[in-house]
Amino acid sequence: MTSDVTEERVLGAVRERRELVNEAIDDYLPMDEPERLYEATRYLLEAGGKRLRPTVTLLAAESLADVEPMSVDYRAFPTFDGDVADLMKAAVGIEVIQSFTLIHDDIMDDDDLRRGVPAVHKEYDTSTAILAGDTLYSKAFEFMTDTGADPANGLEATRLLATTCTAICEGQALDIEFESRPEVLVDQYLDMVEHKTAVLYGAAAATPAVLMGADEATVDALYQFGIESGVAFQIHDDVLDLTVPSEELGKRRGSDLVESKETLITVHAREHGVDVDGLVDADRLEAVSEAEIERAVGELEAVGSISYARKTASQLAADSKRRLEVLPRNEARSLLADIADYLVTRGY
Amino acid sequence: MTSDVTEERVLGAVRERRELVNEAIDDYLPMDEPERLYEATRYLLEAGGKRLRPTVTLLAAESLADVEPMSVDYRAFPTFDGDVADLMKAAVGIEVIQSFTLIHDDIMDDDDLRRGVPAVHKEYDTSTAILAGDTLYSKAFEFMTDTGADPANGLEATRLLATTCTAICEGQALDIEFESRPEVLVDQYLDMVEHKTAVLYGAAAATPAVLMGADEATVDALYQFGIESGVAFQIHDDVLDLTVPSEELGKRRGSDLVESKETLITVHAREHGVDVDGLVDADRLEAVSEAEIERAVGELEAVGSISYARKTASQLAADSKRRLEVLPRNEARSLLADIADYLVTRGY
Repeated sequence: MTSDVTEERVLGAVRERRELVNEAIDDYLPMDEPERLYEATRYLLEAGGKRLRPTVTLLAAESLADVEPMSVDYRAFPTFDGDVADLMKAAVGIEVIQSFTLIHDDIMDDDDLRRGVPAVHKEYDTSTAILAGDTLYSKAFEFMTDTGADPANGLEATRLLATTCTAICEGQALDIEFESRPEVLVDQYLDMVEHKTAVLYGAAAATPAVLMGADEATVDALYQFGIESGVAFQIHDDVLDLTVPSEELGKRRGSDLVESKETLITVHAREHGVDVDGLVDADRLEAVSEAEIERAVGELEAVGSISYARKTASQLAADSKRRLEVLPRNEARSLLADIADYLVTRGY
Repeated sequence: MTSDVTEERVLGAVRERRELVNEAIDDYLPMDEPERLYEATRYLLEAGGKRLRPTVTLLAAESLADVEPMSVDYRAFPTFDGDVADLMKAAVGIEVIQSFTLIHDDIMDDDDLRRGVPAVHKEYDTSTAILAGDTLYSKAFEFMTDTGADPANGLEATRLLATTCTAICEGQALDIEFESRPEVLVDQYLDMVEHKTAVLYGAAAATPAVLMGADEATVDALYQFGIESGVAFQIHDDVLDLTVPSEELGKRRGSDLVESKETLITVHAREHGVDVDGLVDADRLEAVSEAEIERAVGELEAVGSISYARKTASQLAADSKRRLEVLPRNEARSLLADIADYLVTRGY
């Protein structure tokens, strides 16, 4: 469990870097022609977002280089070859991929809202949203091929981004498929989350190591840090959906249940004899009462599914922190460990 | 104008390479999990396609290396640095990008058919089609980062692919925007076509030069060859839509007119006082009679718009052929020139 102090440290580190990341987004993804397309590419990025993934990228770089956090220009960051690379461009590339996946996912899931504003396909239209996602996709590859890092490292980082995007697509396809599968096993669920969510954390953490020319063991350890903390992040998200009041959550509590989305909790509950599909008896979020959700959560708690999910997330976060031992012991590494804790303790 | 002999030569060269390209697609894009997603990624690729763009890539490589066509393994092709690169992987990457754009375009345009079979979003569903396109997108970048070419050249080729994809998105956005713009000028139309269609021909022709380590003048000339012949290809397509009987065209003649799609012909006609929007008086393809189309084509011919488009396409094809002078004089170069001719003389 993290203390409030840890959470404050994490949010402080994120906030400091978010400003720089947002400046870089403005610089690297300026308004261009056709105007409506570029407005749409920037719309979700401007609507908010913590910039957690780019923060992980920047912190991993700082820890690897063993420098005082925020003391070095991210856009001309020292590599192990003795030259510099624009790691901010790589960090923006990761954030831009995240944004592209959200835009396309919202079309597929027909979700109306994202970050408190209409989804891109609602604010604009589906064609523009598809194209905005596609444009962000190629922009991310433009950024990753243009960091100025040693070409072999730049090519390797770009390949990592490509395999990451393939895995994200596979994860999203599995997530959709699970909705109509009669039974999903725990391992299948975790595999889906690893593909859909965690690989981008893996890429966020490993990319600076690749670009800086770190050895393979370091790259692998950072990648696994991202994978494990990313899966933990998603499981914690599933717990929050059931346990946090709607007002704090910013969306209706229990929405995953109502939308029949598989989570580690429902998968575990089904394995333990719970009739998950019968937990709430409406398939429209508005029609389900708070009391029904309360009853469903009670049943999931009674069978141990919620505490199982909590424990799994904590365990993964702890595992992920051990991966950081490959890094020099410094402030940035300690902040990365705090982020892993934060991901499984944050309130929303 | 090409003779039948030239057309036969081109189609022969395309056919010979198509078989190898199709084998490579099978090897590099095998069925994987989730099955439905990978089926959807392969569906349009398996439905057909001439493989013109990868053929341009392979021929440009053969001409650059000054080797007998089809005499060298495309997957271990000699570069100017003395090592080898898998140019077939790059060629497949180009074809896969083409496939991704068709899948997403068909969703945006709500087109039901493609290559004589249902569009991917009709055969599967919109979510699967979006994801299949996204998967092909990342696969193309996996391929381009994995040719084994010198890393600096590999990175440069990957960057070219990324900027090409951005341009394609911009072109598609412009094409959509044109439908609701009161007036489109000739230069604006040509700019849209360059973005939407020609840049991928440019990338197809220039990529082998980049990967092989050719000098900048050669890369640029091949890129321009692709741009000019690509724009010519699209203009000829617009002419065919109006002048070829529906049976030969494989789709209803005059469909661009009925769907209010801007073409070089409509843009020219509007500039010359034709009420283009009033040419056919229905907005449903089925309701427009062959006689109405005939009358519309007559009016467009009378004002000189169709011959203007033909002349523009021929001129661009001739320009593109002059770009090839940068290449050694050999059989492959002569086939590339034949392709430029073929693009503006083919019957459908």
